[in-house]
Amino acid sequence: MTVIKLIGKKPRLKNPILIEGLPGVGNIGRVAVGYLIEELKAKKFAELHSEHFFPFVMLHENYHIHLLKNEFYYWKAKKRGQQDIIFLIGDCQALSPNGHYEVIEKILDFVQGFGTKEIITIGGLATGELEEEPQTLGAVTDKELLKKYRGFNVKFNAGEKVGYIVGAAGLLLGLGKERGMKGTCLLGETSGFPIVTDPKSAEVVLKSLTKILQVKVDMSKLDQRVKEMEHFIKKVESLQRKALMEITKEEKAPVKGKEQLRYIG
Amino acid sequence: MTVIKLIGKKPRLKNPILIEGLPGVGNIGRVAVGYLIEELKAKKFAELHSEHFFPFVMLHENYHIHLLKNEFYYWKAKKRGQQDIIFLIGDCQALSPNGHYEVIEKILDFVQGFGTKEIITIGGLATGELEEEPQTLGAVTDKELLKKYRGFNVKFNAGEKVGYIVGAAGLLLGLGKERGMKGTCLLGETSGFPIVTDPKSAEVVLKSLTKILQVKVDMSKLDQRVKEMEHFIKKVESLQRKALMEITKEEKAPVKGKEQLRYIG
Amino acid sequence: MTVIKLIGKKPRLKNPILIEGLPGVGNIGRVAVGYLIEELKAKKFAELHSEHFFPFVMLHENYHIHLLKNEFYYWKAKKRGQQDIIFLIGDCQALSPNGHYEVIEKILDFVQGFGTKEIITIGGLATGELEEEPQTLGAVTDKELLKKYRGFNVKFNAGEKVGYIVGAAGLLLGLGKERGMKGTCLLGETSGFPIVTDPKSAEVVLKSLTKILQVKVDMSKLDQRVKEMEHFIKKVESLQRKALMEITKEEKAPVKGKEQLRYIG
Amino acid sequence: MTVIKLIGKKPRLKNPILIEGLPGVGNIGRVAVGYLIEELKAKKFAELHSEHFFPFVMLHENYHIHLLKNEFYYWKAKKRGQQDIIFLIGDCQALSPNGHYEVIEKILDFVQGFGTKEIITIGGLATGELEEEPQTLGAVTDKELLKKYRGFNVKFNAGEKVGYIVGAAGLLLGLGKERGMKGTCLLGETSGFPIVTDPKSAEVVLKSLTKILQVKVDMSKLDQRVKEMEHFIKKVESLQRKALMEITKEEKAPVKGKEQLRYIG
Repeated sequence: MTVIKLIGKKPRLKNPILIEGLPGVGNIGRVAVGYLIEELKAKKFAELHSEHFFPFVMLHENYHIHLLKNEFYYWKAKKRGQQDIIFLIGDCQALSPNGHYEVIEKILDFVQGFGTKEIITIGGLATGELEEEPQTLGAVTDKELLKKYRGFNVKFNAGEKVGYIVGAAGLLLGLGKERGMKGTCLLGETSGFPIVTDPKSAEVVLKSLTKILQVKVDMSKLDQRVKEMEHFIKKVESLQRKALMEITKEEKAPVKGKEQLRYIG
Repeated sequence: MTVIKLIGKKPRLKNPILIEGLPGVGNIGRVAVGYLIEELKAKKFAELHSEHFFPFVMLHENYHIHLLKNEFYYWKAKKRGQQDIIFLIGDCQALSPNGHYEVIEKILDFVQGFGTKEIITIGGLATGELEEEPQTLGAVTDKELLKKYRGFNVKFNAGEKVGYIVGAAGLLLGLGKERGMKGTCLLGETSGFPIVTDPKSAEVVLKSLTKILQVKVDMSKLDQRVKEMEHFIKKVESLQRKALMEITKEEKAPVKGKEQLRYIG
Repeated sequence: MTVIKLIGKKPRLKNPILIEGLPGVGNIGRVAVGYLIEELKAKKFAELHSEHFFPFVMLHENYHIHLLKNEFYYWKAKKRGQQDIIFLIGDCQALSPNGHYEVIEKILDFVQGFGTKEIITIGGLATGELEEEPQTLGAVTDKELLKKYRGFNVKFNAGEKVGYIVGAAGLLLGLGKERGMKGTCLLGETSGFPIVTDPKSAEVVLKSLTKILQVKVDMSKLDQRVKEMEHFIKKVESLQRKALMEITKEEKAPVKGKEQLRYIG
Repeated sequence: MTVIKLIGKKPRLKNPILIEGLPGVGNIGRVAVGYLIEELKAKKFAELHSEHFFPFVMLHENYHIHLLKNEFYYWKAKKRGQQDIIFLIGDCQALSPNGHYEVIEKILDFVQGFGTKEIITIGGLATGELEEEPQTLGAVTDKELLKKYRGFNVKFNAGEKVGYIVGAAGLLLGLGKERGMKGTCLLGETSGFPIVTDPKSAEVVLKSLTKILQVKVDMSKLDQRVKEMEHFIKKVESLQRKALMEITKEEKAPVKGKEQLRYIG
């Protein structure tokens, strides 16, 4: 009951890297990857819906009804040094713990069919403080990647600040590694309380990401685009807040001290 | 473990439109569709029960035990302009998020077997205020329907007031669209706090619905019928209240301001 | 993952009536049916365990570990007017709503294999008051049974006092009816707050039950036996309390007035 | 969606005894079995991951991402009186009740393939008091084991102090017995509030365990090792606290008196 549906013809891609930007803390991933999709004019080619999402439909433009979904876009390398890319964005993540595992496995099955061997996930790290100069923190499933990406303004010390990565940003990498895929998580520092979209942090992560992907993107329209997407983002925020409460609800009682206030998604 | 059982012979229907009126906010759908079934003398032909309902049986008439169920009725077009109809009413909706998806898919499988190509769901929109002159709001999965139904006192601006449609009223349309079925949701404005049956709002929606279906119904007995159904409705209300709490429980904590107080079902 | 395991040879039974006495409100069923099993020297022939039970094992006699289970006993008719009986007792009921449905369907599959055509379930009706002279209330799935059992000190007006029967006592009858089995629920009135075993109410129900089954049982040892079983019963009570909280947790918030305080199990 | 993956070649083992030390109350099992694995230089040969674990990945050494997992190690008997051993340790236990059953059945399938006929699980018994001289309490699934292990400083009166054993420490024995495996649970007394790793209690249990297994282990490095593992243990504690809250959450409300404060895991 988690279904991925191709839209149009199956694209031919060469070992595309998967870039995930589902809603999460600060919507860092959703904003950064959403903007990159627009700027690169990536093409939508598949949709995922799942019984593990909220039993809701969304209302757009006053009257239009949409099933909650995740979306796949592709972009083909234009020049040397670049690589084909599959982007994953969407309205929400799974609601239940086992739902997370099931949706992520379906996504991995799907991208494996295109030859994906590497994954980069984008998330936010809630620091509980206003971040004047947010940084991109990183973590990897393979030591080799450390050397490869260290140069791109990524500080690979996320583990000093948090103990876990929650949801798709973490599981895609952990379960991907079981299939031999290498993985990197890029986390933008963000206040995280209350959970609000943080375009500033998204921009910092996006800068690291575009360097890694060797693509050029005009950042000047990011703020403008976030404003235009405000209505949609508010809905996603509301969904994400609910989902986060669902999977972190057991954490509420024994939270003590500053370290526990930090989380990642 | 969600089973639909035919009662008697399978009826022959010609592309019947599905009209859903399961319990929800204000029981708008349950009352409007229940009344229409009686007035049109529609015939019951199938029952659904599911492991995703409450693990309860209901007691009727002091001593009689009934499994919780949804019921299918049909009505055949009598003259030009009308169409065959399948009505869906019942005691309750599914309890868990994935239960919702599973029950709805079963219902869609079932009506697809009769050639259903269009669905209208009826729900309530809880405004948190006493509604002196409740209106019928609408939302669609297909722009074409907007033109078709705009004339029938339906204001297609539901999206201005709420972001989601919860449960069967939403998912039947969202998942139906994936199968190529067109869908409309008609929502009656109702106070919604506390969750009580609102016959006034149900009547307003019923007026729009009968115009859409091109059937004539004597509205004068609606109040009387609601009174007669009071005992049954109280039980349905109690079930519905529990189910709504179940699927919206994660919404409680961060509710702020008026917009979030509105919900749909 | 719900398994019923035969112990020894499969008994030959002739259309045995199923008598259920799983833990519930006041442990009426557990005590009444447990006592009947001992007095009739019924023979244990099968055990059920399920992933839908608590992820616990019980400790008996200081050092002995037992998986949570339900147990089947049989008794063969000794003279005219009697019938073969399958008794169902156990440590607990399922924990989740869909778990209830799955365990009950497994039980029905199992007894159907022995030709069961009738079911009697025993439960307690929590009145919230100290009951000086508790009565046996009844409800049926088939009007015919009303006439048959009305004579045996059963008041068939349970529906005046409660709206639902929760758990096995209800679902065995509701789902059994779907298979053409007739069913009766006998409910002993009991205070229900706090949930404590009520041997007095169990005795009243047991008197009705023995008349229905046309068996004679010496009631004088019931109090004594309840005392002897005290240690076991305390554990069952604790489990049952947890299970009841699990399936009725969504009921807590909107409870108002006396009627809602009553429940059945 | 619970997968056990062999690492390297399948080891040849002769009826290995399974020793379980997953995280639980006081982390008695995790510490005792983890230390034994190191001291005996047992060899890792399999990993388990499951959709029933938290939808998290862990961060180690600042930048390294790991899927939550359980791990299997083996050790081959060196001399007469010893036996081959499979050790089971890990980051966490399952999150949901049915998840527990499913993961445990998978583990039993796996070790049964190696000829396992006996299981010893290690847990903590939370007494709610500071334990100056914690003892090893025991419980068994087979009376025979009582005689066999009574000599090794194990007091087989756990049932006097608690009614249940929660999670893997209990279910491995209860479900194992259904497959004809004999089982013993060794429980270290520990305060249990707040849930903190208790190396003192772990040492007491480890002394009993090494006598049972007839292996010699230098205990002097235990404190040192616990300190070295501190960072890892803190994460495991945090996970375990969450899991324990998940499966015991329904216990909170009606807890009264001292007896109910005790639990086992």
